[in-house]
Amino acid sequence: MARPIRFNAFDMNCVGHQSPGLWAHPRDKSWKYKDLDYWQDLARTLERGVFDGIFIADVIGYYDVYKGSNYHAIHQAAQLPVNDPMQLAAPIALATEHLGIGITASTSFEHPYTFARRLATADHHSKGRVGWNIVTSYLESGAKNVGQGGLRRHDNRYEVAAEYVEVLYKLLEGSWEEGAVVRDGEKRIFTHPEKVHEIAHKGKFFEVPGYGLTEPSPQRTPVLYQAGASGPGKAFAAAHAECIFVAAPTKSVLKAYVADIRQRIAAAGRDPKKVFIYTLITIITDETEDKAQKKFEDYKSYVSYDGSLTFMSGWSGIDFGQFAPTDVVERIETNAIHSFVEHIAGGDKSWTIDELAQFGGIGGMGPVCVGSPERISDILQEWVADTDVDGFNIAYAVTPDSFEDIVAHIVPELQKRGAYPTEYKPGTLREKLFGDGPYLPKTHPADGYRDIEAVKRREAEAVPALKTVGA
Amino acid sequence: MARPIRFNAFDMNCVGHQSPGLWAHPRDKSWKYKDLDYWQDLARTLERGVFDGIFIADVIGYYDVYKGSNYHAIHQAAQLPVNDPMQLAAPIALATEHLGIGITASTSFEHPYTFARRLATADHHSKGRVGWNIVTSYLESGAKNVGQGGLRRHDNRYEVAAEYVEVLYKLLEGSWEEGAVVRDGEKRIFTHPEKVHEIAHKGKFFEVPGYGLTEPSPQRTPVLYQAGASGPGKAFAAAHAECIFVAAPTKSVLKAYVADIRQRIAAAGRDPKKVFIYTLITIITDETEDKAQKKFEDYKSYVSYDGSLTFMSGWSGIDFGQFAPTDVVERIETNAIHSFVEHIAGGDKSWTIDELAQFGGIGGMGPVCVGSPERISDILQEWVADTDVDGFNIAYAVTPDSFEDIVAHIVPELQKRGAYPTEYKPGTLREKLFGDGPYLPKTHPADGYRDIEAVKRREAEAVPALKTVGA
Repeated sequence: MARPIRFNAFDMNCVGHQSPGLWAHPRDKSWKYKDLDYWQDLARTLERGVFDGIFIADVIGYYDVYKGSNYHAIHQAAQLPVNDPMQLAAPIALATEHLGIGITASTSFEHPYTFARRLATADHHSKGRVGWNIVTSYLESGAKNVGQGGLRRHDNRYEVAAEYVEVLYKLLEGSWEEGAVVRDGEKRIFTHPEKVHEIAHKGKFFEVPGYGLTEPSPQRTPVLYQAGASGPGKAFAAAHAECIFVAAPTKSVLKAYVADIRQRIAAAGRDPKKVFIYTLITIITDETEDKAQKKFEDYKSYVSYDGSLTFMSGWSGIDFGQFAPTDVVERIETNAIHSFVEHIAGGDKSWTIDELAQFGGIGGMGPVCVGSPERISDILQEWVADTDVDGFNIAYAVTPDSFEDIVAHIVPELQKRGAYPTEYKPGTLREKLFGDGPYLPKTHPADGYRDIEAVKRREAEAVPALKTVGA
Repeated sequence: MARPIRFNAFDMNCVGHQSPGLWAHPRDKSWKYKDLDYWQDLARTLERGVFDGIFIADVIGYYDVYKGSNYHAIHQAAQLPVNDPMQLAAPIALATEHLGIGITASTSFEHPYTFARRLATADHHSKGRVGWNIVTSYLESGAKNVGQGGLRRHDNRYEVAAEYVEVLYKLLEGSWEEGAVVRDGEKRIFTHPEKVHEIAHKGKFFEVPGYGLTEPSPQRTPVLYQAGASGPGKAFAAAHAECIFVAAPTKSVLKAYVADIRQRIAAAGRDPKKVFIYTLITIITDETEDKAQKKFEDYKSYVSYDGSLTFMSGWSGIDFGQFAPTDVVERIETNAIHSFVEHIAGGDKSWTIDELAQFGGIGGMGPVCVGSPERISDILQEWVADTDVDGFNIAYAVTPDSFEDIVAHIVPELQKRGAYPTEYKPGTLREKLFGDGPYLPKTHPADGYRDIEAVKRREAEAVPALKTVGA
């Protein structure tokens, strides 16, 4: 197989992740998100389908732009309630052997020193199958609720994130040398103290003088995910991310994005083919075209108009509650809405607010692909061939059915065509994805923090030099 | 059975928790702490032995008082490396049906808003079997490493803790009313918005205006553990704790402590019999007295002198590295050492530094009980009868052997005597322990935060009154 299509499952530790209202569908089990069995069963399904991983999104906060209140978010369980994603890593690891486990965590809510320990622990527990989805943004309500414990609001979020990952690299890559832990019962040495280093980090936002708390985990730094689509988000992804998650309404939008991001990765001195890009999609399929279309019609009847616009308003910052369902977007004199709708729709259609709600009501901001296994497989292959994307980040309409349908129908069809992997590669998640060993490659910025004593000398020299300039 | 003896396993997500050097014993498996199988196997053993729970201690930081460095802590893996305890809750829950899971978390390192979500998530995942061991103290090195993200150093730790638990009660008890979540597919209502409340918390240390992120977990507030022995620690435990963990060298010290704490609990308006007190102990046993004694001698030969004094120095703040092993404590002119040794030894012996290291080298600061099942059972029953303690918090010398020996030898002997439970009670951890329902009782301070709208009115009225006083 030259270059297989890659699948990732997009989920969240909540009810009806991006399909507001579909929790009421009799087949939907997302309300069982509190049960570990639910997650373990889903993980086994995805591993049977040779998915690269399951990616657990997260928000801390809630959607309150629509009609200026939280009413509809709560009413439709629109990502509220929401449980901690990190605690899903161990149970998913226990239920599977290969599946990657992507956990979202923000650089805004926890200190990097304690977060480094959480992340390393998850990597230990999963024997190296964890990815970290780095997010910087947060809902206004989240920032308010973590009050003084949170970061200052006026901080540049990506500037904080850059220093945050630097602290993590120092702790996870630099603090504990290879071979530090020997567990030598004869000589009664567990760890060689001279091979464990204080990181002496003194930055603009964080000060961490000491040692990392954890011994090196299988991947040291887990696989780095990123989903930022803004300018600084793209720059951050090009510098750090190994898996990038995007949402694009059309092939032409996607193609331009992929070309741009690969060029930026190359400009950062990294191999642009060793960063995987997954585009958001929702797939509704069945044995036949007709059955798939009927399934789609059935699903659509459960979409919550208010729930859908709750998300859209939260994501765009535009309160769609001020319009009637029949209002046509072209006739609304707000540039922001035009640009938002253009982004999601690819600009080739005029939309009513109701159509907008229907569109976003299944699987969020990605295209919804409905049809027979053959037709869907044609489309997926076409998207990959035409856009240079590596694969798909698959949202569900109804869970676990959406994923089970894909594993039952799409995966075998693509495998038959030689376009999808039939088994996992051995090793850690990073090895399964890229095949070059468990650690970040030498071209990655993390490599610069491995010889921490050299970093400390460099930083010690840099400080007086800067002072001289200022004097 | 009138009043059974209760067992709790004392552990930590690290190597050789309180038995420095015993990691080198060929039977010790604590170096496998990174593996979930290790924890699941241990949990199954404890459940077979009808232990109330497993209590995962934690430190963020490391021991650097001994000889003024971290050398020996690192060399002997003395609670460094150490992994995140919270991520053990789900795997232990998956391996067991009844065992309580006590997770330690500090009120100093994470904001209560995000911590409330973590705790509720663990309670959901375990179907209500989680306890939270509330700690306020931390190692100096931990405070330094969480830099500006941590709380201000000069804050009164128990004052912060009191407000921290208040925020948790408001979020976990008050924000989501009973019956808020209905998941009514017919009416398309997941949650009644009018039954979910903003908590509007505005305190000295935290400001949390909004909603809790999680729907009510089986216990709402998990079972509250506390282990503070200082004056403010005792007051906090008397007000809030449901399980209290103590360390006492002699029956007379323990008896006085238990009487004092029960009196304080009663004074706080709570039922002193519905708070369980577990005292630290290490048990070394085998089929016969002789085998047990030989096992003890074997274990002792692995104690690390430096590792043991690393802990003792860290706990007491006294650098024992300044003395020779043969120095006799009585001859050292430092009151602090006398008082520390008196505390751990009960004041009835004169100690050399080497004896001190030996004493603390197995199981930390609790007594070590060595003998046949009959002899140990006699001692345990005598301690309970003479001191009014509810049970024992059992540290290991070598793990899992120390626990397996107890389950194989002590538990059946005590059961034969009708002094130990033979099965678990049904329900959540709180119901298994106290039998009165899954939630904190009405006499607990958490009850005052259940009607959150009343709390908000009360607080709104209180503020002007206070202002008037100040004016």
